[in-house]
Amino acid sequence: MKIAVLGTGGGGRAHAAKLHELGHQVTVGTRDPEATLARTEPDMMGNPPYRQWLADHPGIPLATFADAAAAAELVINGIDGHNAVRALTALADQLAGKVLVDYAVPFIYNPDTEHPWPTPWGVMPRLDPVDIDSLGEQIQRALPDVKVVKAFVTQEQDTVVSPRAVGDGDGDHTMFIAGNDADAKQAVTQLLKNYGWSDILDLGDLHAARGMEMYAHMHSAIGFALGGHFGIKVIR
Amino acid sequence: MKIAVLGTGGGGRAHAAKLHELGHQVTVGTRDPEATLARTEPDMMGNPPYRQWLADHPGIPLATFADAAAAAELVINGIDGHNAVRALTALADQLAGKVLVDYAVPFIYNPDTEHPWPTPWGVMPRLDPVDIDSLGEQIQRALPDVKVVKAFVTQEQDTVVSPRAVGDGDGDHTMFIAGNDADAKQAVTQLLKNYGWSDILDLGDLHAARGMEMYAHMHSAIGFALGGHFGIKVIR
Repeated sequence: MKIAVLGTGGGGRAHAAKLHELGHQVTVGTRDPEATLARTEPDMMGNPPYRQWLADHPGIPLATFADAAAAAELVINGIDGHNAVRALTALADQLAGKVLVDYAVPFIYNPDTEHPWPTPWGVMPRLDPVDIDSLGEQIQRALPDVKVVKAFVTQEQDTVVSPRAVGDGDGDHTMFIAGNDADAKQAVTQLLKNYGWSDILDLGDLHAARGMEMYAHMHSAIGFALGGHFGIKVIR
Repeated sequence: MKIAVLGTGGGGRAHAAKLHELGHQVTVGTRDPEATLARTEPDMMGNPPYRQWLADHPGIPLATFADAAAAAELVINGIDGHNAVRALTALADQLAGKVLVDYAVPFIYNPDTEHPWPTPWGVMPRLDPVDIDSLGEQIQRALPDVKVVKAFVTQEQDTVVSPRAVGDGDGDHTMFIAGNDADAKQAVTQLLKNYGWSDILDLGDLHAARGMEMYAHMHSAIGFALGGHFGIKVIR
């Protein structure tokens, strides 16, 4: 399948590498490909320069957001949550009618809060939107012709693409998806099966994105307690 | 152990019945015992009148919040989230120095929101506090001499007291606790082992209550998708 991954951060790289390995025709989108390739310093999350990553993953084209989205059948949004609505709205024409998988958490870093939550990596970011709306729904409202599926968001993207890296290697933990279009969810479910997931739970329409995004704080707390990779399995 | 359960709702009843069955000396606290016993209609959550429940669970004394808390070594807060800080603050003297387990979700029902989330039981309530504070932390700040432990909140209370009612009966799913006092968490961990829990994960200090309370929307979405009892297991 022709798949675009928008964004060159750690999550986007994980998906692009895995999709390429699986034989999909993947293109990575970035705001300014020349600028992305010219960078020689790690990004703000500490990822090595993109051209260094690309040297280890040859054969994955880099294009503008618009060109990558235009050529794709399915698009994975790896643009950071705070910029996602604005950046994706600019791609309305290229995304129209397509499946857009969103895995972003709408974190606001360096929040000025009365009761900061200190963490091993600084103060816990806050979420905006939260509780009575979600980033997934905001994207869907901004792009009514796009089939938005919220997925991947409850895990590190490294383990989304390699679920068997968690636990004893049988990959038996749960991936959650939500969205308003059944065919779009079916396409994402198939992609997840390609990634190695066996337990994929459909949480219904995009309202469930609220719960999926708000799980971020619980996920962080579990991560601080355990260290290392983990997943959650719904026991029924 | 002498344990007080504050509140006569479904959660309080589940804990009181189980604690009594386990041989603890349990007292249920309510605002006005005579009024509670006089009621002949189901409560707002549809629970049968308390005196009907009491007839099926003889030997569990009902007392005022203050008398129940004063006599107890460990107190379980089953007062609904929206009233908990005010009601518990009035019990500061009776609770001082004791372990207080809080499992409330600070739901506000009938929220007036721009994008309501319709659910099988009405519009999804909103949370207050959320994201940058939690009910658990509010209670701890209001009662600095009390050892607050957030626990139980990620499950229906019926399955908190009977973890083996979930899944294939081995009870192998995860219970989360958080709190600022290690001894208090140890006491609650022991109580949870009495209930049948084997996987109890300490998420650290009370800041983690934010994640535990905000998991409520994810828990609801999973419940809508599956129906019936479920739990989550952290796979590491």
